[in-house]
Amino acid sequence: MSQSYTNETIKTQLEHRTIREFTEQRIPEELMEQFFEVARRTATSTGMQACSIIRVTDPAIKKEIADVCTQEYVARAPELLIFIVDQYRNYQIAKEKNVEATSARGIDRFLSSFTDACLMAQNVVSAAESLGLGTVYLGSIHNDASKICKILNLPKLTFPVLGLGLGYPNQEPQRKPRMDMKLRVFENQYTCFDNYLDRIKEYDEEMTTYYDLRDANRRVDSFSNQVVARFASVNPKREQILKVVQEQGFQLD
Amino acid sequence: MSQSYTNETIKTQLEHRTIREFTEQRIPEELMEQFFEVARRTATSTGMQACSIIRVTDPAIKKEIADVCTQEYVARAPELLIFIVDQYRNYQIAKEKNVEATSARGIDRFLSSFTDACLMAQNVVSAAESLGLGTVYLGSIHNDASKICKILNLPKLTFPVLGLGLGYPNQEPQRKPRMDMKLRVFENQYTCFDNYLDRIKEYDEEMTTYYDLRDANRRVDSFSNQVVARFASVNPKREQILKVVQEQGFQLD
Repeated sequence: MSQSYTNETIKTQLEHRTIREFTEQRIPEELMEQFFEVARRTATSTGMQACSIIRVTDPAIKKEIADVCTQEYVARAPELLIFIVDQYRNYQIAKEKNVEATSARGIDRFLSSFTDACLMAQNVVSAAESLGLGTVYLGSIHNDASKICKILNLPKLTFPVLGLGLGYPNQEPQRKPRMDMKLRVFENQYTCFDNYLDRIKEYDEEMTTYYDLRDANRRVDSFSNQVVARFASVNPKREQILKVVQEQGFQLD
Repeated sequence: MSQSYTNETIKTQLEHRTIREFTEQRIPEELMEQFFEVARRTATSTGMQACSIIRVTDPAIKKEIADVCTQEYVARAPELLIFIVDQYRNYQIAKEKNVEATSARGIDRFLSSFTDACLMAQNVVSAAESLGLGTVYLGSIHNDASKICKILNLPKLTFPVLGLGLGYPNQEPQRKPRMDMKLRVFENQYTCFDNYLDRIKEYDEEMTTYYDLRDANRRVDSFSNQVVARFASVNPKREQILKVVQEQGFQLD
């Protein structure tokens, strides 16, 4: 790769790995402010800025969230951010202007905000990693989205999208093998293959050489076996998540 | 801000603006490959890599997508990427292992993949902007998600999330004013205010000094007026998007 096609930003991105164990070192407040400024400058659908961040600093609340995640290390993350859909703020702004904005409840607004929250989270991750910090995404807050809403006192027209733990790394995980992008990037039209197992054969083997630090340094299974195992594991509460979306005031149609 | 709380990555992030007009200069193929490598290394829910990219190079297809977006400049973007939910690939992998993974159709998988696709898009944006390229997100592909599925030949268990135009900037837009993060970052619990208009007063005024290059260099309206106008504008097809999600094979409950 020619020098001109890379830089420190990209080098850091290519070295991404999830960090679940952090040192005791606190993230300086000025740096957290910097991350929030990065969040603020992230692209946002039609400029509406309809997403927000709950910064969880109370150890008791961290513990409650870790319980939902069923990941005890969540409670030990030096910083824990929950990125949320937030149509509440703009709805109230309209209301103060004497406009009852029923369309704030629409699924279109919900998905735009959901997207914005994800973009914001990844931008913060890139900033944090560029300064040597480690991060862990917590999709596991959706194990019980309703409980997360209660814990964080989320009003109607808000919804928890993604959690993020941050801190200074106290582990050096191996970089996780990834599938060849030939299977993930298509030109002009989606291409269906009839021999995926053949096409991921090398990757399947490579995956078995990877040591997952979460799992007592045991080797992991092949990717295709992981896929089968993941699909077999269904969390009924997670499949009911749209009910929580509705309870939070959004209309699904 | 102390030197140690910033670097080139963060400086670039703080200078983000949307670029809609690009020079004729092509993005070198090696650089596109680099961006796909960044996409590949992006965090992904439980390692499943259940999202993909359609790279649109055919001018006729670009034009069709621009028509859905009702944004003619989309057809002129040097590179156009559509990030998609992709449970199809892993479903097929399981099938080749003689497992019929009905849970691939669940809303939980859908939302995890949707999230992954957004994270991947933002990681590519950060990489591109770090090398001086410009980007434009296209949420407008949801104006007619069903048509996008047809145009890109998307199979069941895939879904278009977000479009992204990339190229070398041919415009220098003003940085768009943004709301104070005091209204968007909360500690431990969400905080509802009863005087948003007071709290955004300065921001509302600042917004009227912003010139939107899209709009013949006219000043734009205050943020609160924009909010009211946006909420008044409802696209019925966008509100029916979950129907398309179902047509693509996903179960909503």
